[in-house]
Amino acid sequence: MVKARKYVVKKHFQGVPKRDDFEIVEQELPPLKDGEILVKAEWISVDPYLRAYNARTPIPYDQFSYQVAVVTESKNPDYPVGTRVVSHKGWRDYTIFNPTVKTDDKNASLYKLPDLHGLSPSLGVGAVGMPGATAYFGFLEICKPKAGETVVVTGAAGAVGSIVGQIAKIKGCRVIGFAGSDDKVQWLEKELGFDKAFNYKTVDILKSLKEAAPKGVDCYFDNVGGEISSLILSQMNDYGRASVCGSISAYNEDPSKMPKATIIQPSLVFKQLKVEGFLVWRWDGRWPEAFAELVNWIKSGKLKAREHVTEGFDKLYDAFTGMLAGENSGKAVVKV
Amino acid sequence: MVKARKYVVKKHFQGVPKRDDFEIVEQELPPLKDGEILVKAEWISVDPYLRAYNARTPIPYDQFSYQVAVVTESKNPDYPVGTRVVSHKGWRDYTIFNPTVKTDDKNASLYKLPDLHGLSPSLGVGAVGMPGATAYFGFLEICKPKAGETVVVTGAAGAVGSIVGQIAKIKGCRVIGFAGSDDKVQWLEKELGFDKAFNYKTVDILKSLKEAAPKGVDCYFDNVGGEISSLILSQMNDYGRASVCGSISAYNEDPSKMPKATIIQPSLVFKQLKVEGFLVWRWDGRWPEAFAELVNWIKSGKLKAREHVTEGFDKLYDAFTGMLAGENSGKAVVKV
Repeated sequence: MVKARKYVVKKHFQGVPKRDDFEIVEQELPPLKDGEILVKAEWISVDPYLRAYNARTPIPYDQFSYQVAVVTESKNPDYPVGTRVVSHKGWRDYTIFNPTVKTDDKNASLYKLPDLHGLSPSLGVGAVGMPGATAYFGFLEICKPKAGETVVVTGAAGAVGSIVGQIAKIKGCRVIGFAGSDDKVQWLEKELGFDKAFNYKTVDILKSLKEAAPKGVDCYFDNVGGEISSLILSQMNDYGRASVCGSISAYNEDPSKMPKATIIQPSLVFKQLKVEGFLVWRWDGRWPEAFAELVNWIKSGKLKAREHVTEGFDKLYDAFTGMLAGENSGKAVVKV
Repeated sequence: MVKARKYVVKKHFQGVPKRDDFEIVEQELPPLKDGEILVKAEWISVDPYLRAYNARTPIPYDQFSYQVAVVTESKNPDYPVGTRVVSHKGWRDYTIFNPTVKTDDKNASLYKLPDLHGLSPSLGVGAVGMPGATAYFGFLEICKPKAGETVVVTGAAGAVGSIVGQIAKIKGCRVIGFAGSDDKVQWLEKELGFDKAFNYKTVDILKSLKEAAPKGVDCYFDNVGGEISSLILSQMNDYGRASVCGSISAYNEDPSKMPKATIIQPSLVFKQLKVEGFLVWRWDGRWPEAFAELVNWIKSGKLKAREHVTEGFDKLYDAFTGMLAGENSGKAVVKV
């Protein structure tokens, strides 16, 4: 008998999620049937979308997110013990799967960890996982950047933003990032090769942007929404493209009382801008394509995949709220 | 010697344009040279974009807009006396052109009035002119509506909105319009065949929309911007498309202090919406394609092109501010 533990969300969050919005529940798992595997989580992800989906998910619910797990017991010859898998089972340690049963339920499906060529398996929930696919497709497919263009990224030190900026550099763009601390700004400029980065909390955003992008902005990858997005859109060039990945600035707000920001329609009309929101699951079938390229870039040193690691299953709540508060540079992940 | 009169804009408007922001200037026109024509305006257009471009145009400037004029004197065999032409010469009565000189300057070029098959030449600045092309391309090319989809139009009783709604009906869509008076609502529902119309000044917009579009909104044609747009975008279906044509709600505001509205990024992300602004000159070369179809629809009774006619060159200012105040149903035009 294996005992599994999981986090159940009992309440809809009000503002910053509270520790007692969650409950850790134990359950005994049954013996494996033919075709099934037992997996143990090694790396569990905490991401902004967990906050955003809270209001949209009926409670109680098991806290979903991506996790990398290793097969510890197997009655499925395609998944021998030691195989690593990625699933959306989220904040739980042990899970039984039957990989041969096909399902459209994102939370019940899994895939084998891509070949990481010796890189840390933790990347399976980061640069070579959902956040990597988000950066890759959300930027390349929606912004369609061209060499020489100017790209602005907000949430630039986050799991997705830091990859977007580096992909933009690989594609020959000029890259400007906004992040929430001077340390992050240093990291973006000195280590990740951003042409310019700013601490949005301390600079005059419009003035900084005009100086850093004197020829205007062609592509905007928007992780945050709100007033900074209105300002950036006002500085875009004709036919600029904005990819809207998230709006973390509003995730802790009451969804029935979203904040206001300067209207963007005049910028959209006069510069003929295209602004498109996306969910990465749109490109589900194509994730392996992104993963192969991302692994190559990391192995060749063109892309740095920094992680902000918290240790311990019991620390998931702290890692989550820390990430929401912007304490991480790079991908926030929990080592179980 | 012919004396021409034109309106010169002397000031950048503050709020609603004032009569003395304009000056009527007379000038004597020289005798025609070979290749030139003298034309006399018959119909002059007043449109929201004249207000919007004021802050973006160095003063003083001649008030541009579209006009239909007739050739009264000709030294160009391709343009005999009586030929009708459409130009962007705006608020002036007599003008000399040399049509053989090609120019990229929109304000100096002209084209022959399309064959209207007996319809009023005034349509050359309306349903079979720039506003018609705006409705046709801005809706069909950007919203890409499919039969059975639900379309929402704001500024629905205006020159562009009223045509967009009717094109949407022709394409088999369910059409909901927002306009600014009960009379306009009546006209949209009873005469133009909108499935539902609302007076945005008196109804609960969100509630009305949920009732009229229980299956959500697929396409949004946005003439107004501001809070109503945030509300409509919040009711859109996955992969909805919004075409942003204008933001008249903000045109009388100080451009350095645009109003705020509820942020739209969460709607964009979770519904994967695409929002695109446009200027109709993008499709310059294709206008004749729209004009041919629009004439057919009008001749066959599928599309009604109502005009709100003001008489007299001296009334251009009143027609303009009346249009900005929403006094018109259909295309506001001045008969010279």
